[in-house]
Order: sequence, then structure tokens, then C-alpha cells
Amino acid sequence: MTQAPQPCDLLIEAGWVVPIEPHGVVLEDHAVAVRGGEIVALLPTAEARARFRAAETVSRPGSVLIPGLVNAHTHNPMNLLRGIADDLPLMTWLQEHIWPVEGAVVGPQFIADGVALAVAEMLRGGTTCANENYFFPDVEAATYKRLGFRAVVGLPVAQFANAWAASEDEYFDKAIQVHDQWRDDDLVSLAFVPHAPYTVSDAAFGRIRTLADQLDLQVHLHTHETAQEVVDSQREHGQRPLARLDRLGLVNERLVAVHMTALDDGEIALCAERGVSVVHCPESNLKLASGFCPVAKLEQAGVNLAIGTDGAASNNDLDMFGEMRTAAQLAKAVAGDAAAFSAPSALRAATLGGAKAVGLGDRIGSIEPGKQADLVLVDMDPLETRPLFNVISQLVYATGRHQVSDVWIAGARRLRGRELVDFDMEALLASTRQWHGRISAILEQKQS
Amino acid sequence: MTQAPQPCDLLIEAGWVVPIEPHGVVLEDHAVAVRGGEIVALLPTAEARARFRAAETVSRPGSVLIPGLVNAHTHNPMNLLRGIADDLPLMTWLQEHIWPVEGAVVGPQFIADGVALAVAEMLRGGTTCANENYFFPDVEAATYKRLGFRAVVGLPVAQFANAWAASEDEYFDKAIQVHDQWRDDDLVSLAFVPHAPYTVSDAAFGRIRTLADQLDLQVHLHTHETAQEVVDSQREHGQRPLARLDRLGLVNERLVAVHMTALDDGEIALCAERGVSVVHCPESNLKLASGFCPVAKLEQAGVNLAIGTDGAASNNDLDMFGEMRTAAQLAKAVAGDAAAFSAPSALRAATLGGAKAVGLGDRIGSIEPGKQADLVLVDMDPLETRPLFNVISQLVYATGRHQVSDVWIAGARRLRGRELVDFDMEALLASTRQWHGRISAILEQKQS
Repeated sequence: MTQAPQPCDLLIEAGWVVPIEPHGVVLEDHAVAVRGGEIVALLPTAEARARFRAAETVSRPGSVLIPGLVNAHTHNPMNLLRGIADDLPLMTWLQEHIWPVEGAVVGPQFIADGVALAVAEMLRGGTTCANENYFFPDVEAATYKRLGFRAVVGLPVAQFANAWAASEDEYFDKAIQVHDQWRDDDLVSLAFVPHAPYTVSDAAFGRIRTLADQLDLQVHLHTHETAQEVVDSQREHGQRPLARLDRLGLVNERLVAVHMTALDDGEIALCAERGVSVVHCPESNLKLASGFCPVAKLEQAGVNLAIGTDGAASNNDLDMFGEMRTAAQLAKAVAGDAAAFSAPSALRAATLGGAKAVGLGDRIGSIEPGKQADLVLVDMDPLETRPLFNVISQLVYATGRHQVSDVWIAGARRLRGRELVDFDMEALLASTRQWHGRISAILEQKQS
Repeated sequence: MTQAPQPCDLLIEAGWVVPIEPHGVVLEDHAVAVRGGEIVALLPTAEARARFRAAETVSRPGSVLIPGLVNAHTHNPMNLLRGIADDLPLMTWLQEHIWPVEGAVVGPQFIADGVALAVAEMLRGGTTCANENYFFPDVEAATYKRLGFRAVVGLPVAQFANAWAASEDEYFDKAIQVHDQWRDDDLVSLAFVPHAPYTVSDAAFGRIRTLADQLDLQVHLHTHETAQEVVDSQREHGQRPLARLDRLGLVNERLVAVHMTALDDGEIALCAERGVSVVHCPESNLKLASGFCPVAKLEQAGVNLAIGTDGAASNNDLDMFGEMRTAAQLAKAVAGDAAAFSAPSALRAATLGGAKAVGLGDRIGSIEPGKQADLVLVDMDPLETRPLFNVISQLVYATGRHQVSDVWIAGARRLRGRELVDFDMEALLASTRQWHGRISAILEQKQS
């Protein structure tokens, strides 16, 4: 006796499915069944049709289905500052361009509008989760939630004052308020984001350590971004940043260490031993001449690797396909080994590696029953991805983000045939135009 | 008395025109008039409408008009081998994968079909001229001509035998035949392509030098690709490759030196002094772990720089937008200077720098009256390129090649709203599918 078909909300049939777990596998003609926002099965399409009665079926024999990409380091409100200043030394860029403009514009409306622009860009590029690192986490969280986008919103801590907070104490007070408000949300989760070792005191790091343990939060931190940062830390604290963080009890599996270009072998071993995640931002590191992250060595040591775009003001996009490609290419040149950091490794870092880094490794990052249905269809029909010999190579080395056709987050369609779903595009374009005018006026005033 | 409007074939009005010459300039609301395949004027749109009566007007206030990109180093037939082998050491990749497959497939039909696929990809990515480096230049030339694509077709010379030629002598005989046939063509020009210093004898280099002078041809050559190549040359010839080429009389403005990662300061100065062009292939250099080309030093020394994708078997695409971005980013990290190799410099290398390198600096590479109308419209409306503060930064750091909407070569439309014009797409897809099947069978046989 054959079993009656089970109901499900959605069946996605694809020419190829790359589940990420197990590693490096490509399943031909497979389907994913979704119910209640979760993946309930991954199986051959023929079997899926017999086993499920789906409310909606999406059939794409020319497409690859992958888990949504996780952008493990970004400053999304800065999308409104895309390209305001390029080809400048880091400190000139920050002190004479970025910070003055931020000082003039950062506030709730800027945050909400910048995040909305970033969400639109991310969805159209196959990203379904952002590890957010900026100010006004209350506004960020509300915006991500409103747009149905998954995010780990950073609770910032820094010694400098800005429109969000005037002192380390105020940063903490507000962090706890925001945490209280969002702690049980299904799409928005939280992390501490101490700005950088050079802008956060020992006392504040100690408090972050205690609170992160109590509240079960990751600690998302730019560090070892440049050799200069390491030199400065040695001068000021008598220790390299990672050693100082270790003294303060922060080098553990909660630490999401971003950039990490200036690392010695002992530091790589320490990260592996303690379960630190490293977020590699290759294009930011190149463009700001920060240095070269030793990705192959980190992978070999067993460190969990993730990939981030950094903010669009520095990079100048949120293109995780481009970032995967650059990561896979650059790691080889840095290691002097064309076999280093393979395409499957880069794709894993951009999905499950990122999910683990941000503390969501049990919920997203791979196509496995029980996980959230954060899914992306990538069209391999365009001639730019023909002929197709190796699906994962093609995704990493030849596919453009514009080949993303459809995106779901927690089973809800967010992109349909490249059109954003339930998204007020007119409002987005209007607010972007308005900010363009306002920021242009600031830049002109600065020049005159 | 106002002058009567002059007739022209085509008037392209764009929100912005980047003429490349003068350097770094962006002209707002300008238009280009085209007659007989040539640019006749570049002027404000309002003036253009008064001065010209155009048979066709294309008006794109949301787009940037740039000269067609020049891909200054490519092996286009290898597009059919895209992704057959990745993440492998260079020699394993070549000896165990690329060469055996090439041995089985390379012949006139493979060349014609591979070039057609590459032309389609290049047109859709804003490239209008390829500096081609492969075998069967007769077939290549005929294919480029048939498709209305501008190319500098390489006349190969090597010590190894293949389906094209069995000896250095035969390479020369055939080179001269192909040159005789194509010497006066308006779209196809020719260059010598000695394969690499390690596969060409001193005698052959001497003959190339003489013939290049007689026939007025560039010499397009992979060299200083890796540190190992330099070491090997020292062992075999007692000289570094560039010193050996200099002894043989080849270090001059005819030399188009590709890759050039392993260079000392004296070699950089020599290239500047002699007018050598350097073709930088950043993504190939990264992915094959070849080394880092000292782009900032070369630019500072005044060397003419061009950009190439290399073949799709190694890279794995012909995306000059991606290559410009990687070039501009990577040069900064290599130089340790975020101000190095600016966006305008990268765009210049990808256009006029390439044109000069391949010997067409007086005909293409910039938007100037008297030059060929090789023109590309890039749509800046998508939200991924908003807000738009700096047109050239946006082109280099944030624009995807899929934003190319329209392409003209010598005034003939080759892409219209992303659709190829006068191009048999069905035949292309059929031949690509057929080669996919045939090459897959070879790969399976190799594995068993």
C-alpha cells in the first residue's frame, strides 16, 4: 500500500541542489519541500512529486538551489554612502570623508533608508542573512523585521560619542534595552559589536564578556585589520590585539573576528583551539590596502571561516558572489598554492561558515531538514555560465549575482523572477534620491 | 544665420560620457555623433540636437557611455573549456587536464564555436576588442569577421607541435599565409604570439623580431608569469626572460608582455624606457597563484598598462568589469597604498591602455572624433549602482557587466537592450551543448 502524499507549502525542484552539508556535494534533479517556513525534505524530484502534495511548486531544471548566502560582516546603512570617496588612504578616507558625512547624516531615518536599500541589493544578490555592524540597532532591527530579512543586529559599544550614544555606559544601557525588545524574535537576533580593540576600553570588554555569556550572544569585532593596528596595540597595551582580548576572556567560540590580516602562526592556532570564527572580507582588505588574510592557513588549522562584504562605502557593493570569487582566488595567491581554498570551501564559508559564525549554525546555512527555508535559485541558463561542467566551480568562478532569480527567507518568497516581493520600490528609490541630494550638498560644502 | 544640421548615422545621448581622454573626466548630458562607423563629434546633448540630423537617435539619460573595453589577453576558444578543472596546481592543471583535452578537441570547428561563444559573452559584457592568443588564427580571424567583432588575432609560434603546426618553421609559414590574407582588414588585425619564453627558441625569437618590424606587428607574449619561470630561464639561458628578450632585440614598443608578476625595479624601468606595454591579468594571476604584478610601480614608472581576462578555462569568465575591479583593488593591497591604481586608471587600462598595447591606440580606446565608434552604454538605473556620487568609481567598484545594455563596433549595433544583434543564438547554444557532451565524455574516459 502506497502512502498518501503529505501536504507541504512549497516544493522547489531544481536541476541541481548544493546542500553544503555534506561538503562539496551536488545533487542532480532534486527538490526541497518546505512547510511552516522550514525545510522538511531534500530528495530526488521524482520521489518528491510522489511524496508531497505542495500548495505551490516551483520547477527550475536550469537552475541551482543553494542555501541563502550569509554576509558575515556589513555596515548596511552605509549603502547610502556608496562611492562617496575612493582611492584614498584609510585614515584620510575615514577622517576627512566618511566620519564628517556620517556625523551630518546618521540618525534613525538614515539607518532605516540605508538598510532598506541594502536589503533590496542583498535579496537581488542571493543574500538572506546579514551580520550587521552599525549604530541605532533598534531602527535596524525594526527595518529588517519589516522587510522580512534575517539579520544579526549588532549592539554597538565604543568609546566615541555619536548620535546613538554618548559614552560606553550609554551604549551598554541602550544595548540591553534593544536586547530586551528583540530577544525572542524569529528573524532578528543580536550580537555585541564592540567597534574595534582601539576604540573600546578593557573595562567595556570585560562587561561585554559577562553580558555575552549571560545573554548568549556572539561578539562581532573588527580586529587585526592592519599591521598598524597590531603595532599600535603593542604600544598602548603592551600586547597584540588578540593577546589583549585573550587576557580579557574574549577569545572563545563567541568571538567573530573580522578582517584578521595581521596574524602569526600562534594566533592562528589559538583561534582554531578556541573555536573563534574568522570573517574574511577580501575586497575590503584589498581596496583599503589593509593586508592579506591567511585564509589557507586558517582553513588548514580548522578555523571556521565566513565571508563578508564590509560596507558599501568601502567596497562598494554587497555582492557575495563577487566576494566568494575574490576570496577563492586571493587565498591561492596568498598561499602560493593554486589548490588552496577551493570553490566548495568558498561557498561553504559564504553559507554554513557564516551561519556558524553568527550563532545560527543550527538554523540556517545548509539545506537540511529542520533548518529554516532560506533558499536561493540561481539561473545557470545564461551563456556566461555555459558550458557547465562543475556546478560549484561555476557558482564561485563564473556566476554573477544577477543570475539569482528567486529567494525565500523562512519559506516566504522575497524575490520572484528578480522582482522584489512585498517591497515598496518607489519609496526606496525616492528615499535614495533624497539622500543622494542631501549628501551631495554636504560633499559640495566640504569642498568649498 | 544658423548652420543647417549635418546628417549623421547615429546620435547616442547619455546621462554621462566618459571619454577616457582627457583622463578621469565625466561629461554630463553629452552625446556622440557617428558617421560611416566613426565618431564625428562629442558634445553637449542640447548642442548635438541642433547640429546633427541623425538617422537614428538613442537617448539614455540613466546610462553612461564609455568606449568599448579592450580585453588585452585572452584565449577565446577555451571558453568551451570553462570550469573543466579548477583549484589545482598550475602544472597539474595544464598537464593532466587542459592539454589532454585540448589534444583531443582542438581543430577548426572547436575554434570557431569557442570564439563565437566568447564573442557573445564579450559583447554582453561591454568588450569590443580582443587580443587573441590561440591556434588556428585563420579560423579565428574568419569567425571574428563574420560576427563583426574587432580582434587582434595572434599568429602563434612555439616549439611544440599541435593540430595547427608541427614545427617552428610550419608556425612561421602559416603565420605569413594568414597575415597575407588578413593584412588589410578593418576589423581583424594581427600580432605575433610566441607562446612563452620557455617554449620558443632564440632563433624563432630572432625571426619574429625581423618579421614584426617588416610587417609592423605587435609581439604578444606571456612572460614573467611566475617566479619559477624566471628561475628556469636563468638556469637554461643564464638570463631572466626579459634580459634574454632584450638580447634578442624584442624589448621595445612592439612588446605586449602579459602577466609580468616577477619583476625587479630594473626591469620595470626598462619597460618604461622602451615603451613596452604590460597586460595585467589579475584574476588569472590570483587563481593560478602565479604571483602579484607590481601595477602601482609600473604605473608610476610610466609603463602603458592594459588589462586581460586570460582564458575562461583558468579564470573562468571574460568579465572585464570584474577584472577592472580586481585590478584596482589588488594593486592597492600589493602596493600597501589605498590610493594606488585609482578607478580612472583601471578604466583607462581597460580601454585606451589596451588599445595602445595592441597597436590600435590611434583607432579605438577613447571617445574622440576620428576614432572608430566602438561604444558601450552602461545602465546605472539598477539599485545596485545607487546612489551615484562618482561615475567612474561606480563603473569600476560597483557595476556588474550585466548592466551593459547596448554595444556598437565601428558604428554597427552588436547588442541592443542586452540582445545580441545579427547573431544566431540557437546555433550557438546547440554547438555549446554539443561540445559539452563531447568534452564530458573525454573527461569521464580520463577518470576511468
